[in-house]
Amino acid sequence: MIKVGIVGGTGYTGVELLRLLASHPRVQLQIITSRSEAGMPVAELFPNLRGRVDLRFSEPDSAALAGCDVVFTATPNGVAMGMARELLEAGTRMIDLAADFRLRDPAEWERWYGMPHACPELLEEAVYGLPEVNREAVRAARLVANPGCYPTAVQLGFLPLIEAGLADTGRLVADCKSGVSGAGRKAAVPTLMAESGESFKAYAVPGHRHLPEIRQGLALAAGSEVGLTFVPHLIPMIRGIHATLYATVADRGADLQALFERRYAGEPFVDVMPPGSHPETRTVRGANHCRLALHRPQDGDMVVVLAVIDNLVKGAAGQAVQNMNLMFGLPEDSGLGQIALLP
Amino acid sequence: MIKVGIVGGTGYTGVELLRLLASHPRVQLQIITSRSEAGMPVAELFPNLRGRVDLRFSEPDSAALAGCDVVFTATPNGVAMGMARELLEAGTRMIDLAADFRLRDPAEWERWYGMPHACPELLEEAVYGLPEVNREAVRAARLVANPGCYPTAVQLGFLPLIEAGLADTGRLVADCKSGVSGAGRKAAVPTLMAESGESFKAYAVPGHRHLPEIRQGLALAAGSEVGLTFVPHLIPMIRGIHATLYATVADRGADLQALFERRYAGEPFVDVMPPGSHPETRTVRGANHCRLALHRPQDGDMVVVLAVIDNLVKGAAGQAVQNMNLMFGLPEDSGLGQIALLP
Amino acid sequence: MIKVGIVGGTGYTGVELLRLLASHPRVQLQIITSRSEAGMPVAELFPNLRGRVDLRFSEPDSAALAGCDVVFTATPNGVAMGMARELLEAGTRMIDLAADFRLRDPAEWERWYGMPHACPELLEEAVYGLPEVNREAVRAARLVANPGCYPTAVQLGFLPLIEAGLADTGRLVADCKSGVSGAGRKAAVPTLMAESGESFKAYAVPGHRHLPEIRQGLALAAGSEVGLTFVPHLIPMIRGIHATLYATVADRGADLQALFERRYAGEPFVDVMPPGSHPETRTVRGANHCRLALHRPQDGDMVVVLAVIDNLVKGAAGQAVQNMNLMFGLPEDSGLGQIALLP
Amino acid sequence: MIKVGIVGGTGYTGVELLRLLASHPRVQLQIITSRSEAGMPVAELFPNLRGRVDLRFSEPDSAALAGCDVVFTATPNGVAMGMARELLEAGTRMIDLAADFRLRDPAEWERWYGMPHACPELLEEAVYGLPEVNREAVRAARLVANPGCYPTAVQLGFLPLIEAGLADTGRLVADCKSGVSGAGRKAAVPTLMAESGESFKAYAVPGHRHLPEIRQGLALAAGSEVGLTFVPHLIPMIRGIHATLYATVADRGADLQALFERRYAGEPFVDVMPPGSHPETRTVRGANHCRLALHRPQDGDMVVVLAVIDNLVKGAAGQAVQNMNLMFGLPEDSGLGQIALLP
Repeated sequence: MIKVGIVGGTGYTGVELLRLLASHPRVQLQIITSRSEAGMPVAELFPNLRGRVDLRFSEPDSAALAGCDVVFTATPNGVAMGMARELLEAGTRMIDLAADFRLRDPAEWERWYGMPHACPELLEEAVYGLPEVNREAVRAARLVANPGCYPTAVQLGFLPLIEAGLADTGRLVADCKSGVSGAGRKAAVPTLMAESGESFKAYAVPGHRHLPEIRQGLALAAGSEVGLTFVPHLIPMIRGIHATLYATVADRGADLQALFERRYAGEPFVDVMPPGSHPETRTVRGANHCRLALHRPQDGDMVVVLAVIDNLVKGAAGQAVQNMNLMFGLPEDSGLGQIALLP
Repeated sequence: MIKVGIVGGTGYTGVELLRLLASHPRVQLQIITSRSEAGMPVAELFPNLRGRVDLRFSEPDSAALAGCDVVFTATPNGVAMGMARELLEAGTRMIDLAADFRLRDPAEWERWYGMPHACPELLEEAVYGLPEVNREAVRAARLVANPGCYPTAVQLGFLPLIEAGLADTGRLVADCKSGVSGAGRKAAVPTLMAESGESFKAYAVPGHRHLPEIRQGLALAAGSEVGLTFVPHLIPMIRGIHATLYATVADRGADLQALFERRYAGEPFVDVMPPGSHPETRTVRGANHCRLALHRPQDGDMVVVLAVIDNLVKGAAGQAVQNMNLMFGLPEDSGLGQIALLP
Repeated sequence: MIKVGIVGGTGYTGVELLRLLASHPRVQLQIITSRSEAGMPVAELFPNLRGRVDLRFSEPDSAALAGCDVVFTATPNGVAMGMARELLEAGTRMIDLAADFRLRDPAEWERWYGMPHACPELLEEAVYGLPEVNREAVRAARLVANPGCYPTAVQLGFLPLIEAGLADTGRLVADCKSGVSGAGRKAAVPTLMAESGESFKAYAVPGHRHLPEIRQGLALAAGSEVGLTFVPHLIPMIRGIHATLYATVADRGADLQALFERRYAGEPFVDVMPPGSHPETRTVRGANHCRLALHRPQDGDMVVVLAVIDNLVKGAAGQAVQNMNLMFGLPEDSGLGQIALLP
Repeated sequence: MIKVGIVGGTGYTGVELLRLLASHPRVQLQIITSRSEAGMPVAELFPNLRGRVDLRFSEPDSAALAGCDVVFTATPNGVAMGMARELLEAGTRMIDLAADFRLRDPAEWERWYGMPHACPELLEEAVYGLPEVNREAVRAARLVANPGCYPTAVQLGFLPLIEAGLADTGRLVADCKSGVSGAGRKAAVPTLMAESGESFKAYAVPGHRHLPEIRQGLALAAGSEVGLTFVPHLIPMIRGIHATLYATVADRGADLQALFERRYAGEPFVDVMPPGSHPETRTVRGANHCRLALHRPQDGDMVVVLAVIDNLVKGAAGQAVQNMNLMFGLPEDSGLGQIALLP
């Protein structure tokens, strides 16, 4: 059994990790920390876990965490980087669900996150945990940077085109939409139901923190910088991300459907749907899948890729468990067999 | 023109007052106060008012408020009672949308609201602003206690039965459901969309502050104390209250439909629907109406009354404007002609 | 492996059965029928099943069904009763998710469902599949009548009080609320999102078909007829039932919390929450649990029981699988380990 | 008073016309037709109109309609074109809310709508009723083609850039999102709440009927054909359209904010929001406004325009009333003073 610790378990990625790990056949939950709720039974805060998780939240305790085989950090940005060195030195592996280790360039990190990086020397070692790109590196990693939710959907949708050199990478558009759970479980007026229900809006159009992360991933695939316009929107629903991706593909003869199917053949969690499909976010609700569909409207040179994920699963906790499975030599889909809840 | 001030304009009853008053043919908005947002244009916080309300929020200013003909207080409980004496002495009339003047008994107020009453001597003078009960008293009032949202729906539904002496008043049940805007526009985890969307729950079953208010109103109609079980629930929607009311009516021959129609004949804002109806909250969304329907399932002795209102209109701001109209001798429906938005 | 057939697999109970059975360790799905969609891959209609269910819908075929160990009928009312004799004679066991075998009295069935019963002689044999009441009978049953969604929640909430002889059974009130998936997956104006979203209403107050089913179950527990007022409502959400139950309990000294805990001790799917709880429907979303909480407001003689289930799981497909597990000697929770999706 | 008839009043544009016209100071509703509901009181189908609209639906009657000053056709595509000649010859003016007269080219109409045009000779006369473009022509029109919902939002958002010659019109992207009321009030599985709630999807990516309408409008402004990729999506909410528009503007020095403000100066229903704004659909719910905001992320050459309307108001019934006001010489905002319902 893998001994697992969770730091920062009171948010939505925390409770989702608990839901997945509580059913994982090879995991033993050792500790889950929360400064604010220390002492409270986890199942009191999250009654869906009654009878399944008997732990209480505890104060962060380095020694206890260091006794784990792996620690998931589901903390606000900037916390995990303060704990990484100590954990790694103790031989504990670490999967960070925040943004602390996603950007390779500490200056870029500082620019977007507004604070200096606490351990820039670890940025090179950290493996960006998108298994469809970095599977082998993840297996060997001590420290995994779990991708952001938007970056997961956008990269999975664009990568086959970019890797094949088919897309004009100077003029990519990612129009993305997310359910409100992406904003986290913190008291705030804009995500009250009376504010975000029955309404739709874009936000952060001037610049969202996931932009540099997406650009970094696409640039690695392209071999050069990319031009990307990224506009996120808030959907009046709880779970799900829908990315609508636009790329110019001059080669009108390319069989893009076949390209995508080849690229993701054998991938356990990427589903290239049949031609003509319009994936719905609910088809991945609660599941670790990304479903993709391809369109080339009116046979023009603009290709539209539709990608859906559950932001809390493939966009966060599920992908983290997938990474853990790789790191510990387990079947990649271990504990990730949930079928999406439809309706 | 009636010069109007609003104290505490940043909540949902505040913006709803603004929506109604901005279109009122006889109102001139003079001042709207907010400590937290002083200086900000009202239409910046509430863009639905762009082009219609040019005021800025200002610091509370006794002199400016005293220059109004009437002041609406849309403040947290306990604030209005600290301002009432001064305003009344200045000749300004006052309509309180909070609970400060709803209960006649200061001890009861202190028990439920957890603080001593600041001006118990005004409790007797204050008129409980349910026009269908107190129309004449409202006309003459200096100080109106605008009813709570649940109490409005429950009283309008029960009153005809109780006034007619038909209901067993020892065993009334009010099972009520409200949209989340009833919880107000304040940052809080339980009313986040990710918490209250796609879910349903009861709350405050041991005792909700609207219980003594309802009991007081029903007791006045009955001429004696009543036994009432009141259970509020939260609906995953924004606006609307649905009260499902249960009363034992031993007299199986009573024509309850006719009773209700007579009781509310001529009432501009109470609609007794045809027999067999099931009113939907959306039929009053944005409108000042209460729609009622009556059932006596299987011809038994249990009568079921269904009552719907928009909690922000007939349950708050609309009823306050209705009271203002009465106080200033205007047509009672002046500025209240909005038709509910359906769908 | 248990060979399983499903008749009528294109509705919500059908797809939910598929979700549960596809992950069941002891089930082999043999056949799923649908007249309207025969030939279509199941996963084309329900893309959440892509990669997990490879079957196609097929025309109903008696021989193929008779080759199954058990057949679930998820058909409109009145269909299953036409197939029962033949299946049972072939040695196939049957779990009907419709209402065909829920009422013992064929005259009552005809009154509420508007058609004569096709095999009244089977009504006595059929076991009402509420395991918390009829566990032993279910184990031995050839034919199980899977309970309705409202009846499951209402009976589980009322039974401890009634079995203990504590409730006044002449005056019970069940105020129930359901998500829209309870109305099924059929084209209809009233359950369009534009009609049922952002609104709340009661329906069928004069009489709902679940009323006789609930009365029958409660009367069996009480040993005599009960007086019940049952009012269902439609919640603007997809899954979940919340029953708010009112019963007069004259004995103010009774320890009801202990009573409920004893009654459901050892029950794998009934969770009596701690005193003061307000269960939310989302805490059972996708899971087979019923969560209960008890209140006695203001220490009066009115007891309020709150009960939540997922109407498609404990209220339909999950309970059907629970019954199948009992019938085939499997662990009762086999294949039912899903944790509710929260948020 | 203008005598008004409505043909096809049982859909969402029909009830919205009724809501607006019932409060219009210069309108007398004469007749509202519906084959399916003839004889039923309008307020029985739409209880929000109780006490405000006393008409019954009637069978279509040419003579009665010809007695009106203006007839609104809120019918399925293809119906209005069969009535137009007769009405116009009788001297009745006509505003079609369907698509029958929106495309100038009958061949294009036939291609997208799958039927030959019944009166192609009227296509030239018909005025495309986007007042911000065709105000003077609308005043004089006998026959107005009321624009589609998506085309209204997309054109208002793109037009200033295109008219000024600033946008690369070969590579426009319109990523649009609509509430479900856009699908109309007809029984259908995909728009059931259990299907479209809590989910998000694109639809009609290969080609939506509003595409040729948008292209036609933009081409007129550009003076040449445009290249447009248009992807509509379904939002799990009732009302509202959000268009996110992408255009390459090479001239980085252009003051686009000033351009838009000048273009729409004096427009009663187009609101150019301050720089940095993110308009929410709820700020126009129930109101006839289009709110626009402009962004140029990272000071690149991609300009993002955000446009919101209520699909049933500015996207349908409200714009139709605006056109009627123009046609009859009334103040353009007559009867259109509704303030959006927020929250």
